[in-house]
Amino acid sequence: MAKRSFPLSKVYGLLEPGPVVLLATEQRNRANVMTMSWHTMMEFEPPLIGCVVSGRNFSFETLAATRQCTLNIPTVELCAQVVGCGNCSGRSVDKFRAFGLTPLPAQRVAAPLIAQCFANLECRVSDMRLVKRYNFFVLEVQKAWVDPTFYKNPRTLHHRGRGAFMVAGETFRSPSKMR
Amino acid sequence: MAKRSFPLSKVYGLLEPGPVVLLATEQRNRANVMTMSWHTMMEFEPPLIGCVVSGRNFSFETLAATRQCTLNIPTVELCAQVVGCGNCSGRSVDKFRAFGLTPLPAQRVAAPLIAQCFANLECRVSDMRLVKRYNFFVLEVQKAWVDPTFYKNPRTLHHRGRGAFMVAGETFRSPSKMR
Repeated sequence: MAKRSFPLSKVYGLLEPGPVVLLATEQRNRANVMTMSWHTMMEFEPPLIGCVVSGRNFSFETLAATRQCTLNIPTVELCAQVVGCGNCSGRSVDKFRAFGLTPLPAQRVAAPLIAQCFANLECRVSDMRLVKRYNFFVLEVQKAWVDPTFYKNPRTLHHRGRGAFMVAGETFRSPSKMR
Repeated sequence: MAKRSFPLSKVYGLLEPGPVVLLATEQRNRANVMTMSWHTMMEFEPPLIGCVVSGRNFSFETLAATRQCTLNIPTVELCAQVVGCGNCSGRSVDKFRAFGLTPLPAQRVAAPLIAQCFANLECRVSDMRLVKRYNFFVLEVQKAWVDPTFYKNPRTLHHRGRGAFMVAGETFRSPSKMR
């Protein structure tokens, strides 16, 4: 896929629909990835994202220590990888290798981008005040990349619980604008 | 619609896919409703929801003062109401009346349920620590209602920005479970 730099002011439109994302981290040359659905936009620009990363996840420690990650948005073609990454731990599995995901170097953070995802966000942790109580991290997006061929109508995955996924349907434009 | 009480342990599956919701509040017998997309699950049970309500929204003051609200999940049939509620302010408009929404009494909170929405969550504000900095409220769901005829495959709305909406497509079940 040919990714292009994507304006930070438009990042909210990628996450606001609520897609499952793959959160990637790296520490001591060891990359890891986890499946995540508990995230929300918190500010337009610079884009702030709030997300819950459970203390049970192997990624938790790396994210808290490095304060860097990428968020990568898969489409339905990556369903097996999304489910697979959500069902094992980076403690015992090299998930990039196990699920055939291709790590690419990011420009602004020390965490890999996932080549197969149609959008990639390079993020730094900007607020950890709610980590102790809720495992809630606030991320600031530093740089965004999108594959323009998928952008128009991305068939993202949306987790409905217990392994049920809704696949994004058609997009329509309402007559008036809403923020 | 015939709503049934819905188990709190399953509430996350309603919001995790990222639908647009209608947040309803009430103060001094005056009900108001706003369109909201910036929300995330934060805990399974009791269900905790984090959400951003801008200080520019008329609902902000009421939510902060009463610490109660309902979250109501519309399907595509309510698209005009969703867009309409997002494009005017409760300061000058009685939105329930203007958009033909029917308020129903909630059981556990002093804020109306919206009859036309397929799911309704009665919520109390449980944490306001990030309100000052991010307008971020943590809500605890007290009671949930769902119309079972819509639950199987709800055609929810997902905001992609600037008045573009994705409508929920089909749901499939993956072979293995994921949380």
